[in-house]
Amino acid sequence: MTVQAVPEPATRTEHLLFLDRAAVRTCAAGIDPVAVVEDVLRAHAAGRTTLPAEGYLPWSNSQGAYCRSIAMLGSVGDADPTVPTAYGMKLINAATSNPAQGMDRAGGVSFLFDTETARPAVVAEAAYLSALRTGAYTMSSLRHLGPEHFQEVTLIGCGAQARTHAELLARYFPDVHTLHVHDLLPERASAFASWVEAGELPFTVVPHGRAAEAAAASTVVITLTITDTGYLTPDHLRPGTFVAHVSLDDLLPEVFDRAQALYVDDVELIRDNPRRVLGRLLGEGRVLAPGTTKPGTTTIRGTLGDVLTAAVPAERPDTGVVVSNPFGMAVLDVGLLARVYAQAAADGHGTRLDLLGADR
Amino acid sequence: MTVQAVPEPATRTEHLLFLDRAAVRTCAAGIDPVAVVEDVLRAHAAGRTTLPAEGYLPWSNSQGAYCRSIAMLGSVGDADPTVPTAYGMKLINAATSNPAQGMDRAGGVSFLFDTETARPAVVAEAAYLSALRTGAYTMSSLRHLGPEHFQEVTLIGCGAQARTHAELLARYFPDVHTLHVHDLLPERASAFASWVEAGELPFTVVPHGRAAEAAAASTVVITLTITDTGYLTPDHLRPGTFVAHVSLDDLLPEVFDRAQALYVDDVELIRDNPRRVLGRLLGEGRVLAPGTTKPGTTTIRGTLGDVLTAAVPAERPDTGVVVSNPFGMAVLDVGLLARVYAQAAADGHGTRLDLLGADR
Repeated sequence: MTVQAVPEPATRTEHLLFLDRAAVRTCAAGIDPVAVVEDVLRAHAAGRTTLPAEGYLPWSNSQGAYCRSIAMLGSVGDADPTVPTAYGMKLINAATSNPAQGMDRAGGVSFLFDTETARPAVVAEAAYLSALRTGAYTMSSLRHLGPEHFQEVTLIGCGAQARTHAELLARYFPDVHTLHVHDLLPERASAFASWVEAGELPFTVVPHGRAAEAAAASTVVITLTITDTGYLTPDHLRPGTFVAHVSLDDLLPEVFDRAQALYVDDVELIRDNPRRVLGRLLGEGRVLAPGTTKPGTTTIRGTLGDVLTAAVPAERPDTGVVVSNPFGMAVLDVGLLARVYAQAAADGHGTRLDLLGADR
Repeated sequence: MTVQAVPEPATRTEHLLFLDRAAVRTCAAGIDPVAVVEDVLRAHAAGRTTLPAEGYLPWSNSQGAYCRSIAMLGSVGDADPTVPTAYGMKLINAATSNPAQGMDRAGGVSFLFDTETARPAVVAEAAYLSALRTGAYTMSSLRHLGPEHFQEVTLIGCGAQARTHAELLARYFPDVHTLHVHDLLPERASAFASWVEAGELPFTVVPHGRAAEAAAASTVVITLTITDTGYLTPDHLRPGTFVAHVSLDDLLPEVFDRAQALYVDDVELIRDNPRRVLGRLLGEGRVLAPGTTKPGTTTIRGTLGDVLTAAVPAERPDTGVVVSNPFGMAVLDVGLLARVYAQAAADGHGTRLDLLGADR
């Protein structure tokens, strides 16, 4: 699908379709987000995506809390007519003081651009879409790199991401019946359990007082925290465990050292960010990029896209631990929004904003 | 003025104020855009702005036309309570095939972010604001670096930028009675003349068939084209002429070689773009950055902000040609939008968009 504004030469209006979170969620319910994410990952592995350097503006607010804006442009599928073509941007801002005020830490808007005129054509609430992208990536990694069979999953961190992951687990892994959970704030874990119950999701929620305890309770561990300090050692993880290291700073270096296999979404994105543990280990040569080896040192097998295109074999955990470390690619948000927009256009969702107003 | 979202903890809504072009224009009519631009230029000269590297996504459309999206983040005034604090972004996209379809080449939206939560707080039509910024910069440069007295002005290029410049000339330079104009498309020059007449702007419009002829017709030359090929030589310009080189590729290198004085908005921005003539000349050492000299070679005097803060003397044209070469700074858009928003908030303009919709 190619995004094109409806031409209206007679009146020379310029419109932008606005999709609030409710509209995004409604439209997303009609698509298969894991299939969309896998399409984009395959396109990315084939070099048919663009991920320009992101714009980054940091500041401190009056409480001294870290605030930032990130503008992430991306395109999918330009060179291949079999893949949907989409150009867009995710604008995602965050303040570390937001959760204490009852707000999600991060929020923003995502755009699609008209392929022909380059005009912004769609603007959508970004946080739900971003969480859906993240969760869908986890589901895909579990499908291809997780244990063959599992019925229990551990979620460390019980915020917004945990909810999206729970919804997707119910949809894509119907065998799962138990969620082991931990949050630094026990009341957040309780609120999550109540939300699961109220939403009639098919899970028993088991709260754990310590993260390590939760990690040891199942063979599928998904980290969804905001920590910048590692806390999980290899000893906390059972043999045969798959770790979706979504929050990127939960695993201590030793877990990477001893991993049975390690997969990423994009080696360069990870290398470019030495503030995250795997980027630092890559920079230090303690973990190696695909294609290089050194005895006793872990080499990244490849990307999930490489697995999906069969360029790299999938290795599921048996006696060791398999780690997936996705840095997060805006191109997945853009690809998902393109599908959400197609659904919105078909079903008549969203609000048309007239950019010019009475000024013609 | 500091941008802050209205807290609504009880309902947990998240709002974004949408300002279409008509609203932006109405609000802008209530402010002094040249004063705002000069405030921001002084802040920039004092190092109280941030201009991160911009995000840039280029592609070709189905006609093979060049398309691009630029995401330009910027902040003003963080470190000084006497200057309005604002954080924001301009998202400005363009396709070279747009004008042939009756659309402005470039368009997009600009944002302000809430200082405390980092959430996008205001989204506004960007093209008018961008043109206003550009025109206001030209007015400021004319005020400080132009001829002491002038009653005629030359506009080369008769598109949207020419209209904004004409409106601002009428407001800030009431002595001007004649506009000499040229456009590659004579019908665009005629349409501009009709627009001036219909809008009762106090100008006689004199169309010229050749750009060089128009340039020679007055001592204030403003280039507002989309050319990427220089066409003005020193011989086309009268002694005592001020050139606002807004479109950045109209002057041939010899004009810079022989300039009486040369001013810019930001030396690094210009140096970083060797696709524009002055960036290329700087890279080649044919024009020198402030603080360096070589006999027979032009040195950039400084920025307009340096002139406004009296760090660098203002030199008006007498026997030679003074050139202003503004690359264009998103931080001016952000500063202008902050003032426009204050006016919108005071007068109740704009539409509140609920980002979450029914999803709470």
